[in-house]
Amino acid sequence: MLFCVEMKVEIPETLDAQRVEAIKAAEKARATEIQRAGKWPHLWRVAGQYSNISIFDVASNDELHDLLSSLPLFPYMQMRVVPLARHPSSIA
Amino acid sequence: MLFCVEMKVEIPETLDAQRVEAIKAAEKARATEIQRAGKWPHLWRVAGQYSNISIFDVASNDELHDLLSSLPLFPYMQMRVVPLARHPSSIA
Amino acid sequence: MLFCVEMKVEIPETLDAQRVEAIKAAEKARATEIQRAGKWPHLWRVAGQYSNISIFDVASNDELHDLLSSLPLFPYMQMRVVPLARHPSSIA
Amino acid sequence: MLFCVEMKVEIPETLDAQRVEAIKAAEKARATEIQRAGKWPHLWRVAGQYSNISIFDVASNDELHDLLSSLPLFPYMQMRVVPLARHPSSIA
Amino acid sequence: MLFCVEMKVEIPETLDAQRVEAIKAAEKARATEIQRAGKWPHLWRVAGQYSNISIFDVASNDELHDLLSSLPLFPYMQMRVVPLARHPSSIA
Amino acid sequence: MLFCVEMKVEIPETLDAQRVEAIKAAEKARATEIQRAGKWPHLWRVAGQYSNISIFDVASNDELHDLLSSLPLFPYMQMRVVPLARHPSSIA
Amino acid sequence: MLFCVEMKVEIPETLDAQRVEAIKAAEKARATEIQRAGKWPHLWRVAGQYSNISIFDVASNDELHDLLSSLPLFPYMQMRVVPLARHPSSIA
Amino acid sequence: MLFCVEMKVEIPETLDAQRVEAIKAAEKARATEIQRAGKWPHLWRVAGQYSNISIFDVASNDELHDLLSSLPLFPYMQMRVVPLARHPSSIA
Amino acid sequence: MLFCVEMKVEIPETLDAQRVEAIKAAEKARATEIQRAGKWPHLWRVAGQYSNISIFDVASNDELHDLLSSLPLFPYMQMRVVPLARHPSSIA
Amino acid sequence: MLFCVEMKVEIPETLDAQRVEAIKAAEKARATEIQRAGKWPHLWRVAGQYSNISIFDVASNDELHDLLSSLPLFPYMQMRVVPLARHPSSIA
Repeated sequence: MLFCVEMKVEIPETLDAQRVEAIKAAEKARATEIQRAGKWPHLWRVAGQYSNISIFDVASNDELHDLLSSLPLFPYMQMRVVPLARHPSSIA
Repeated sequence: MLFCVEMKVEIPETLDAQRVEAIKAAEKARATEIQRAGKWPHLWRVAGQYSNISIFDVASNDELHDLLSSLPLFPYMQMRVVPLARHPSSIA
Repeated sequence: MLFCVEMKVEIPETLDAQRVEAIKAAEKARATEIQRAGKWPHLWRVAGQYSNISIFDVASNDELHDLLSSLPLFPYMQMRVVPLARHPSSIA
Repeated sequence: MLFCVEMKVEIPETLDAQRVEAIKAAEKARATEIQRAGKWPHLWRVAGQYSNISIFDVASNDELHDLLSSLPLFPYMQMRVVPLARHPSSIA
Repeated sequence: MLFCVEMKVEIPETLDAQRVEAIKAAEKARATEIQRAGKWPHLWRVAGQYSNISIFDVASNDELHDLLSSLPLFPYMQMRVVPLARHPSSIA
Repeated sequence: MLFCVEMKVEIPETLDAQRVEAIKAAEKARATEIQRAGKWPHLWRVAGQYSNISIFDVASNDELHDLLSSLPLFPYMQMRVVPLARHPSSIA
Repeated sequence: MLFCVEMKVEIPETLDAQRVEAIKAAEKARATEIQRAGKWPHLWRVAGQYSNISIFDVASNDELHDLLSSLPLFPYMQMRVVPLARHPSSIA
Repeated sequence: MLFCVEMKVEIPETLDAQRVEAIKAAEKARATEIQRAGKWPHLWRVAGQYSNISIFDVASNDELHDLLSSLPLFPYMQMRVVPLARHPSSIA
Repeated sequence: MLFCVEMKVEIPETLDAQRVEAIKAAEKARATEIQRAGKWPHLWRVAGQYSNISIFDVASNDELHDLLSSLPLFPYMQMRVVPLARHPSSIA
Repeated sequence: MLFCVEMKVEIPETLDAQRVEAIKAAEKARATEIQRAGKWPHLWRVAGQYSNISIFDVASNDELHDLLSSLPLFPYMQMRVVPLARHPSSIA
């Protein structure tokens, strides 16, 4: 089951620089893990923004929330979650 | 080069029903054509809305506009166009 | 799997009154059907608005979209669809 | 009398981590208390957000405000409160 | 129990002028009725707008919705409904 | 002359707790003063929000601004000011 | 007492052309009348828009509403009304 | 003196098709005229929208308004007008 | 050439109180200077807000920007700049 | 291939003043570099705002993102990116 998730990252200035780098490294590792598990088939950078548009493939809303809230950058992200269904005109 | 395009369809009530059906049929045919040409790799329905989230793969902005404005439903669509770039954490 | 769906109905003035009554009757019948099937456990009226807040219980996004787009009033509704997950503090 | 309340939590970075954990623990305890009192029949997590959609069952607006403002996280929450009425098509 | 209700009237141009006048007359009569019943203690015009800010005094959300949806202009109004509670600094 | 004023309080976390309590106490005293002077006939709490909806009765815009800007919480409030006029359907 | 009023005109397409011209002529006449009475000291066109920014000088909110609602284009205008007070840094 | 003007065209369905074509032809002619006069140095299509982003070079706000309101499509356009100044980092 | 400028002041809490007072004093002095130069013919306080609505009379966009960005409070202000033109119904 | 990019700069108060000056100097140098490379043909200041409207000329979305995210002020900027195509009425 597919979801389109738009994630906009806003890291507060007051956060210690080293801690930010550590969080970003952990984020990259976690993102790789989830993609390898086949749950995150598409991850694109929005040109000109510190944000991404992603497609998640999960079995339920609960699984989606567990994955998203497991991201180290989760506390610093504004997320838009859009449930996707099959389009009658899609040839895929 | 990838673009995420969100299309929300709003067909005015005043349009003649037969004409609407003809436009929708033409839309489906044109969408199939563009997908077969490899320019429209993803087309998903937004659950609960008469709208879709799509990914277009084109050579330029001009090509993108030509394709989108060639859609029979174009005059009745609100579009959000987001240019996508490669994400540093993507394993694709 | 639960979704919160907020539906705001806006029927254009130009629609023939009899046709509107017929659509509303069909809407009520269809709503009853879906509720009896256990897919629509909660349906509340928003006080002061021609809109409702509902909870749907479905197996997938596709099933959700099929149910929502099967509603006779679907073409005249603005919908907000929110995927719900289990809350860690819920005692239910 | 039912109200739909959407609570979006935004805890400022500047708050001391231990204090945050203490507030969250107190929030969970208070939420359990109110649910056990039958005033908070539904509490769902919004997938992908640090927010919830809830249904409160209270005798008056004053009782609703007392309950909501008694939540330890209240100062860090954006709330949307929607009064609900009986829907003519509900079979509940 | 008090509610603040802001009603913005938007009558579509396509409505027949005589019917509009009839609806407005019925609206005035109904408003007088509800005020006399003590349910609508305050009704003020917003300067520069075809809208009002009102205070309703009702026993429940259901009663509020019944009153509001009984207004002849209801189909042509955008309403904002705000549940009010007692303010700790009020000397009333 | 009446104005509807909606005041949403947002006190920054960085403010010293004791100072906040002092400001709140001064706010309550000042609010009582203005109400006793007959300038603030209605003050209601918005259920679920740290905000209020009030009605002010003043002789001019200048007097309104002087009163509002004299409130100790003024620097921490988002205000919406709506000038009110007599409603043709009001029986008051 | 001064008010800043921003008026955005939106005349529906369905209105008969002759009637539109008549309303516009009546609007110009009424605007001249109110300006001559000293109630409308400033009237500027917003460059690029069918809208204006105006300053009204009136004795009360009621007078302001009577003047604004007397404008023939009133039913086709979106108005923003801002009550103005004396600025401490103004040398006027 | 430069202005950035974003023009979004929304032609109502109810307009007669032939008249629309005539207006569009007149628009193209008028746009060519203004560009040839050196007042409209840049005119770009927004990809995926029936809108453009333009740069106007005029002597005053009045001239800008006269030019924009002379466009045949003016009644059917939503315009955003942004006055531009010299940027300290521009090497042009 | 006239511009309507709406300035909303938001001074962050973290700024040192003495520095704030110094900036405000400098702001008042600079505002007096610009008004005396005839560039700032109108400066009004928005009732209930720490903001003003002003009219500037300048020779160009560049001059407008130089004046506005020379205000000591400029870094702490959200500005809306509206270019004004002569209104055909103005008798001024 | 052209993009219109609107950049609004918001530098948090908490940032050390010297560091801000260093970032601004680096920004100016980087902006000059990109302009000299012919990738940033237009850079205008928005009058009254700490923001600019720019036109970028790049070969792809990826190049656009690399350039924008290379700007030292990138972490402190809200960006709106609009892909531009050739306008059928442009005589350029």
